[in-house]
Amino acid sequence: MRVHLSRGDIHLGWDNSIEPRATIAPGGEIELDLLEASGGQLAPSSEASDLLALDGTRLNPVTGPIRVDGARPGDALVISFLELDVDEWGWSGVLPGFGLLAADFPEPYLAVSRIVGGVVRLPFGVELPAVSMIGTIGVELPEAGQHSVIPPRRFGGNLDIRHLTAGATLTLPVGVEGALLSVGDAHAAMGDGEVCGTGVETNARTRLRIQVVPGASPAFPRFTTHPASDRVGATIAATGIGPSLEAAARDATRGLIDEIVARSRLAPVEAYVLASVAGDLKISEIVDLPNYVVSAHLPLSVLD
Amino acid sequence: MRVHLSRGDIHLGWDNSIEPRATIAPGGEIELDLLEASGGQLAPSSEASDLLALDGTRLNPVTGPIRVDGARPGDALVISFLELDVDEWGWSGVLPGFGLLAADFPEPYLAVSRIVGGVVRLPFGVELPAVSMIGTIGVELPEAGQHSVIPPRRFGGNLDIRHLTAGATLTLPVGVEGALLSVGDAHAAMGDGEVCGTGVETNARTRLRIQVVPGASPAFPRFTTHPASDRVGATIAATGIGPSLEAAARDATRGLIDEIVARSRLAPVEAYVLASVAGDLKISEIVDLPNYVVSAHLPLSVLD
Repeated sequence: MRVHLSRGDIHLGWDNSIEPRATIAPGGEIELDLLEASGGQLAPSSEASDLLALDGTRLNPVTGPIRVDGARPGDALVISFLELDVDEWGWSGVLPGFGLLAADFPEPYLAVSRIVGGVVRLPFGVELPAVSMIGTIGVELPEAGQHSVIPPRRFGGNLDIRHLTAGATLTLPVGVEGALLSVGDAHAAMGDGEVCGTGVETNARTRLRIQVVPGASPAFPRFTTHPASDRVGATIAATGIGPSLEAAARDATRGLIDEIVARSRLAPVEAYVLASVAGDLKISEIVDLPNYVVSAHLPLSVLD
Repeated sequence: MRVHLSRGDIHLGWDNSIEPRATIAPGGEIELDLLEASGGQLAPSSEASDLLALDGTRLNPVTGPIRVDGARPGDALVISFLELDVDEWGWSGVLPGFGLLAADFPEPYLAVSRIVGGVVRLPFGVELPAVSMIGTIGVELPEAGQHSVIPPRRFGGNLDIRHLTAGATLTLPVGVEGALLSVGDAHAAMGDGEVCGTGVETNARTRLRIQVVPGASPAFPRFTTHPASDRVGATIAATGIGPSLEAAARDATRGLIDEIVARSRLAPVEAYVLASVAGDLKISEIVDLPNYVVSAHLPLSVLD
């Protein structure tokens, strides 16, 4: 029998005293319905002004926790992403005060996309291949009390790694008896960096296999990717250069937005969202001190 | 007539008073011989101890400068990488005090590779496809005096962007009359980050086309890539997570080295060099404050 949890089986932050919703044996499979990151507060008909009314305590819900029999602190939890199906719509937004360029884009902006036949149709006339992935996946921390779901930690959580697609595997350290796994925040597309703070946020159903490797806890999460997340073809890229990687990433993203606007009819805020859902931040060099180079790439095919 | 400069036409740092070695008109082509980054101090027979005797003032020589007729501050210099041919040998090394994990790897280490038929053969039994690129390309700064060639700046220089292969184009801001372009530091392979501080450092010959776009100076260098620099196929990846991108990059690189060692017979320092020449640092997320996620990837095919 496979364990199934529904979109009602959610919680809103890490807390190792939350009662498990289900228990599985190592080697077992779970099927989870995942609620999109607004927690049901947004719908296909939503508008930018609705972002200002969001209840922040309901954001980024996760389905779980699931207890894994026999998993102990010091063990590794190995999660195989077997299937991931997303909804027919998703949203991307600029939330005031959130995102890498929060200072440049103070106004709310919402892009509701249609997701049909493996293609994401953004509302400003751009189409992308859907590369669905799971944004939040983690286990409970050893520390008691409530911990915000927004930052990722060594036990996982809101990792926002675009390579966590079907076919990938993720290895997490186990922090507490039973591991207590929770999952949420699916995206139909996202770029490395997720610069505006959102991917194409969507409801999803996923099927995962869970295994335990005794005593193999890694210092931080590790994963293997599937070629589904390869980004191929020529890109346009902009750099940022200086002694701060954060500032270099901001400058690179600003340059990429500038290039997108120059090569399209998009508004800057649309280009910012496009960079977030389809563009990638790379650390080009981290050794030629005192200056680092970060480059922000977008496949040229996206602008065809 | 095409301008040609030889490996004797080098200088060792940025200084806008250096006399140009050649002048070309916009739209013209140049052919440049590039001396590897030790400046001729290393050879195929060199050993790790030779790294300790390197004269630091002779490192990272660049061929040039080349004056571009009519280029003025505020203009953009657009460089098309037409051809790039590398030597039959290259070196990668750990220089004490240099590199992302300088604290972890205090001893000198040298890997001399053979480059044959488009394949880089590292001395520890690993082969990579050669993806040749130019590490250092830049124009003179407006500021008088000498400026170290090691750090890149907004006028380019030691950018160490692995995507600057044949088929790519690079746009640099012009800082002085005539631009004064210099080029060097070719690599037969390099990963995003160049974590140990070197790629596969090699002699090379390159052919470039130089154009000027008046008044189009970008804030920082921009480029378009060629699919030759695509990295395809499944990867093994390790993350670093925390409030510092630098520390996250270090932790991710340490995790990748750990994974490489566990999956191969390589020593940690060999894995470090492999991560530098074939692995990529990605900023997975830069918005889920206070914690960033950096991931360090290596194609699994490299370990086959």
